[in-house]
Amino acid sequence: MEPERPAGDDGTSILMEEMTFERYLERIRGGAVVILPCGAIEQHGPHLPMKADAFIATAIAERTARAHDALVAPSFNYGCKSQALSGGGQVFGGTTSLDSDTFTRVLRDVLRELMRHGATRMLVLNGHGENQFPTYEGVDLALRDAGRDDVKILVAGWWQFVSEERIREIYPGEFPGWDLEHAATTETSLMLALDPASVRHAHVLDERMDHVPPYAVFPQPPDLVPRSGVMSRATPASRELGEALLDTVRRGLDDLFRREFP
Amino acid sequence: MEPERPAGDDGTSILMEEMTFERYLERIRGGAVVILPCGAIEQHGPHLPMKADAFIATAIAERTARAHDALVAPSFNYGCKSQALSGGGQVFGGTTSLDSDTFTRVLRDVLRELMRHGATRMLVLNGHGENQFPTYEGVDLALRDAGRDDVKILVAGWWQFVSEERIREIYPGEFPGWDLEHAATTETSLMLALDPASVRHAHVLDERMDHVPPYAVFPQPPDLVPRSGVMSRATPASRELGEALLDTVRRGLDDLFRREFP
Amino acid sequence: MEPERPAGDDGTSILMEEMTFERYLERIRGGAVVILPCGAIEQHGPHLPMKADAFIATAIAERTARAHDALVAPSFNYGCKSQALSGGGQVFGGTTSLDSDTFTRVLRDVLRELMRHGATRMLVLNGHGENQFPTYEGVDLALRDAGRDDVKILVAGWWQFVSEERIREIYPGEFPGWDLEHAATTETSLMLALDPASVRHAHVLDERMDHVPPYAVFPQPPDLVPRSGVMSRATPASRELGEALLDTVRRGLDDLFRREFP
Amino acid sequence: MEPERPAGDDGTSILMEEMTFERYLERIRGGAVVILPCGAIEQHGPHLPMKADAFIATAIAERTARAHDALVAPSFNYGCKSQALSGGGQVFGGTTSLDSDTFTRVLRDVLRELMRHGATRMLVLNGHGENQFPTYEGVDLALRDAGRDDVKILVAGWWQFVSEERIREIYPGEFPGWDLEHAATTETSLMLALDPASVRHAHVLDERMDHVPPYAVFPQPPDLVPRSGVMSRATPASRELGEALLDTVRRGLDDLFRREFP
Amino acid sequence: MEPERPAGDDGTSILMEEMTFERYLERIRGGAVVILPCGAIEQHGPHLPMKADAFIATAIAERTARAHDALVAPSFNYGCKSQALSGGGQVFGGTTSLDSDTFTRVLRDVLRELMRHGATRMLVLNGHGENQFPTYEGVDLALRDAGRDDVKILVAGWWQFVSEERIREIYPGEFPGWDLEHAATTETSLMLALDPASVRHAHVLDERMDHVPPYAVFPQPPDLVPRSGVMSRATPASRELGEALLDTVRRGLDDLFRREFP
Amino acid sequence: MEPERPAGDDGTSILMEEMTFERYLERIRGGAVVILPCGAIEQHGPHLPMKADAFIATAIAERTARAHDALVAPSFNYGCKSQALSGGGQVFGGTTSLDSDTFTRVLRDVLRELMRHGATRMLVLNGHGENQFPTYEGVDLALRDAGRDDVKILVAGWWQFVSEERIREIYPGEFPGWDLEHAATTETSLMLALDPASVRHAHVLDERMDHVPPYAVFPQPPDLVPRSGVMSRATPASRELGEALLDTVRRGLDDLFRREFP
Repeated sequence: MEPERPAGDDGTSILMEEMTFERYLERIRGGAVVILPCGAIEQHGPHLPMKADAFIATAIAERTARAHDALVAPSFNYGCKSQALSGGGQVFGGTTSLDSDTFTRVLRDVLRELMRHGATRMLVLNGHGENQFPTYEGVDLALRDAGRDDVKILVAGWWQFVSEERIREIYPGEFPGWDLEHAATTETSLMLALDPASVRHAHVLDERMDHVPPYAVFPQPPDLVPRSGVMSRATPASRELGEALLDTVRRGLDDLFRREFP
Repeated sequence: MEPERPAGDDGTSILMEEMTFERYLERIRGGAVVILPCGAIEQHGPHLPMKADAFIATAIAERTARAHDALVAPSFNYGCKSQALSGGGQVFGGTTSLDSDTFTRVLRDVLRELMRHGATRMLVLNGHGENQFPTYEGVDLALRDAGRDDVKILVAGWWQFVSEERIREIYPGEFPGWDLEHAATTETSLMLALDPASVRHAHVLDERMDHVPPYAVFPQPPDLVPRSGVMSRATPASRELGEALLDTVRRGLDDLFRREFP
Repeated sequence: MEPERPAGDDGTSILMEEMTFERYLERIRGGAVVILPCGAIEQHGPHLPMKADAFIATAIAERTARAHDALVAPSFNYGCKSQALSGGGQVFGGTTSLDSDTFTRVLRDVLRELMRHGATRMLVLNGHGENQFPTYEGVDLALRDAGRDDVKILVAGWWQFVSEERIREIYPGEFPGWDLEHAATTETSLMLALDPASVRHAHVLDERMDHVPPYAVFPQPPDLVPRSGVMSRATPASRELGEALLDTVRRGLDDLFRREFP
Repeated sequence: MEPERPAGDDGTSILMEEMTFERYLERIRGGAVVILPCGAIEQHGPHLPMKADAFIATAIAERTARAHDALVAPSFNYGCKSQALSGGGQVFGGTTSLDSDTFTRVLRDVLRELMRHGATRMLVLNGHGENQFPTYEGVDLALRDAGRDDVKILVAGWWQFVSEERIREIYPGEFPGWDLEHAATTETSLMLALDPASVRHAHVLDERMDHVPPYAVFPQPPDLVPRSGVMSRATPASRELGEALLDTVRRGLDDLFRREFP
Repeated sequence: MEPERPAGDDGTSILMEEMTFERYLERIRGGAVVILPCGAIEQHGPHLPMKADAFIATAIAERTARAHDALVAPSFNYGCKSQALSGGGQVFGGTTSLDSDTFTRVLRDVLRELMRHGATRMLVLNGHGENQFPTYEGVDLALRDAGRDDVKILVAGWWQFVSEERIREIYPGEFPGWDLEHAATTETSLMLALDPASVRHAHVLDERMDHVPPYAVFPQPPDLVPRSGVMSRATPASRELGEALLDTVRRGLDDLFRREFP
Repeated sequence: MEPERPAGDDGTSILMEEMTFERYLERIRGGAVVILPCGAIEQHGPHLPMKADAFIATAIAERTARAHDALVAPSFNYGCKSQALSGGGQVFGGTTSLDSDTFTRVLRDVLRELMRHGATRMLVLNGHGENQFPTYEGVDLALRDAGRDDVKILVAGWWQFVSEERIREIYPGEFPGWDLEHAATTETSLMLALDPASVRHAHVLDERMDHVPPYAVFPQPPDLVPRSGVMSRATPASRELGEALLDTVRRGLDDLFRREFP
């Protein structure tokens, strides 16, 4: 015998895509916040799957939605172009990126639709640093095109909830900065906490860039970034650090919901 | 103890996003076909989740990849605008659509990246009728912009593998045509076969449109399409019909692989 | 001596371009429907001129305008890209197509202008299958950009008025479907009825495609479509069939005007 | 009995749209020049039809093609936005204009297709002043996008062949300049020579603008341009002046063909 | 000791960029006209700097602002593509041009922002002929996108204030027309009056084009325009002529302000 | 008597716009680096002029060009949209911003032209944080569209040359981070060093934001940022700090030239 209420429509569901449209609209009319996870498909070293950015954003979005009775919209699987010094750059095979304007248009269109449905409270949750600025532009265009100012749209990258003080407290050693943390200790730790089966343990490695120039070079020099795609140390990663990061992020999001979506 | 080879990199994996970039490139260099599932998030009546189009395309893509040692790229979760007489139209809340040009650009960008990686054999698998024409345009622009003619990119909607003869054989009653089959007998059957827990059984219903005009009307008249979002009969749906449809599609795809990607 | 009222301004005129702007505005203020014929310039086999799609759409538009006191706007001479299995594809010389987004923008701009003039009732009449989806998008963008919902814009391809039952009644033999009917029996019949001098009789021929794949292949394989550009049988064409088709379409359009533009 | 060679394929035909694609390609392979007439649909006073710009460009294109064994491609029926001081501006109903970028894209696309067909000699013939600059841009983009420099594309407005000296010789009275000549003596004369039945004689009138500012004002002041849409004197128009203008233009085009397309 | 009121905020300042935002807003609230100078960076023969068009537009803008208590916004340093017969064309190194649509978008965006600030009176002052039409489009899009008709935006090229009669009075010899006056007598005279140190005296030269075709040729023939980049006579240039031109332009702008911005 | 060599063409000149095109091309052929300063016109508190970002970028570009025999192209006066937490956001009057895609297109077009001139070594020097990501995209598009990989284009914001260690050494007090440093101590110090007359001394003030959310809010809450437009302390500013910053940046740029443009 099959269920009267499907997975998506029962009381505990958070995924917009699993719901019937009627159930979704009920939730929207009830003021539910819609969370849009934005990721990327990008090289993440020899030990992490290419989904890392999208997966982490989606996992945090789902945890947040469960905690705050929010909804999660289908994730943006493809992100903006990887830059050499934050994700290794577009010289890597596997990294699959959109033009900045393409990404911005997708976000504009989806937000416009959510507003048409009646949504007034939205949170764009980023897992890929290079999405950040194009995300701001997409939100601005959505609001301008729709002529709306009666809604609230928030944008955050998960790392923004981890203050510099906090990362110094929990990071094992000296923190190299978020940009060089690509496929390194923090992302590996998060994947160990969230999806340990996806981490290829024996391939976790440490890299050190001889020279991190304070500028960008195009076309990207072939030897600028280690061929492994890792840009700093990854071996200090641990499930515990992952959990500590998730906990910090959770507290930041709790605060966000309390202040912005009471 | 955790695995040496992660889920994405072991021999049986098919999901690009689960792989490390090195494993993915190995597969591409080995000539693996990349399948891109394109769906939509769209109202599917009171009994189906909004993911139906994306879910069906992805499920078929994964089965095909397993059968033919191909890869599945992350799916396109958002599709082109719903039209009144094929998906109920943009009057429905929940339906979340991209402008046609936005969709085309996303596909162009992703295909351009796959070609940069070295992929030469690609299949765009559609689950949402309104994506079809913009998909052709995206493929054309990707090839033109990249100046490539040494690759092969195929485009198919799953329903194209179900010939008119075949559907008459397996359909219980008179087939109303693919357009009016939205959230009706075939899609409900496929969901019963692929994800029965997502179907809200007690809400499966039959609709009959009094008048199906042989033209489109903009803005969409509010009473043109039944408010349920279903456009013809859904109660004849069954898991068996779903399996028969999947089997027919599978044979079509087997044939496609034999002819085009030997 | 020359006429006081020019061709375009006398009581029987239907062509917007032949009218003075004042006469046109008078007609618009009187509620006249504006019909926009959209065609293509495209190979149509060795026996039909490249104008066929534009010519048929325009001829039907003019007949309809005369019957219903409507206006005909200047036709769109260039259409969207030909697809292999509906018009032979972009491998043919002569076929002269716009990017999908270009076509959509032209339609958006022209409809926006008609609405500025005061037009509230419009009909886009298509003669080229590949224009259909981009036409829907153009209408949607025109309405959205202009912020208008007090107008009615209809979209139809002439073939949509010929039901499957009707085509079986009048078609001599087995109907191969509208897509393969390119430069074949129906279009040749229509040209025989509408402009017999343009048909190169001795070159009417029959083709049969060995394999019609249920998917599209890019770049288009050079031998997929017969080099003649004809995709099925054309020799059954006759002026009588052309007249029967025109009569069926006329009845469909009469019905459209009765229901939608009373 | 019907013709073996249709109108479009016989030896004297010049219209691309009337030809079969094979005949057209034969002509292109033989080096035929393709002429693209670009017009507009625009108010032309109380006495001229809105087609004037498109009609004049097309008529001259056809005469030129006959004289020089060239082809005429389907005309661009819609032109760029009318400016107050050259065509009366966008305040007039009836004037139906494209965004500048839309027009440029159409031209880019069509030229790209002609080059794909093998055309290497093209002439864009303008009948609407406001098309001029967007035409240059369209040609530039077509050449850049196609990466071609082995072709020759010429652009001309018909009035450019009428030197200031020549217009002073043939113009009855003082010439007010091409911009203010909208719907005035020269255009009315051309229509009298080319299509006298389209001219509403009793409504030909003279206007004089009190103030022609040496700058443009947006939004256009409602009283800047006479409400008739005529911007200077039209009553001096005559068939003879029209013939003299056509003869002057013909000689300019003869010269163009001799120098550029020998 | 440093000033209490900075350069930009004292009573005599005219440059928007030198002001604090508060002082600027005060001026805008007081109804100040904002002048936007649009130039180009383009070859100007062997004797003039590439800034000529931007410099002249800016200098005139500043003089006008001083006379009429207006503001000058930062200039547009890059202009639209040079055409062969007005600026020598894109075959010259040094000439640095934007696509027409890029220029139009910049102007649209900047005007939209000025309107957001509260500006209702604006003057776009052009120094580069090829900017003229794209400027009209930019103004039109800004007004349309912002849905504003309560503002007044004027567009003028400085040469439009020099009537044909006036140029014949002051020009030493026969005036070759504004298009061929590139880097010739008038521009050289203006630079002698405005910035004599930038003129390379010994290199001022006279050119005469053997053939000035009444049409444009793409790609531009390499020998169409003199290699010096000068297109007619420059040696008649003098500071006195420059002053006479500036005086004529000044009177035209005085008239503009009196009529349009009282 | 006037100069034989104008300002722009003598040996010490660095401004592209002051040169004749021939002198510029000589310099390019000699391998000169072209520096493109990108700024913004944006509120900078009650004490700084709106030009600050553009002025600082240009001043540093000119100093660098003099030190390394490079050229400075005309600056980009308008930048990308201000964000609340880096420049106060788009709620401020005076701030005059381009859409992200507009900025990217301008940069793409200008770089494409420089490459056409023969330039192979370019440096984009940013003075406005929000330009950074759109600059990367513009460079990427320029290289892709031009199909070039034989050039080197660098991108840097001046603040990237001031390491965290260095800023802690020279900053008087605790450094609040570059984002909140808008119109605050560092920018005020730079303006004191570069253009002291533009600083309104009596209005330099300190602000402290009660809450700096780790996320962005759209539409921007009216009370998020102090109404002064200053976002942290400005009173510690001094000419000496400005000089120390300039010296640090100079050393970074010296290093850049040594490594990248030897």
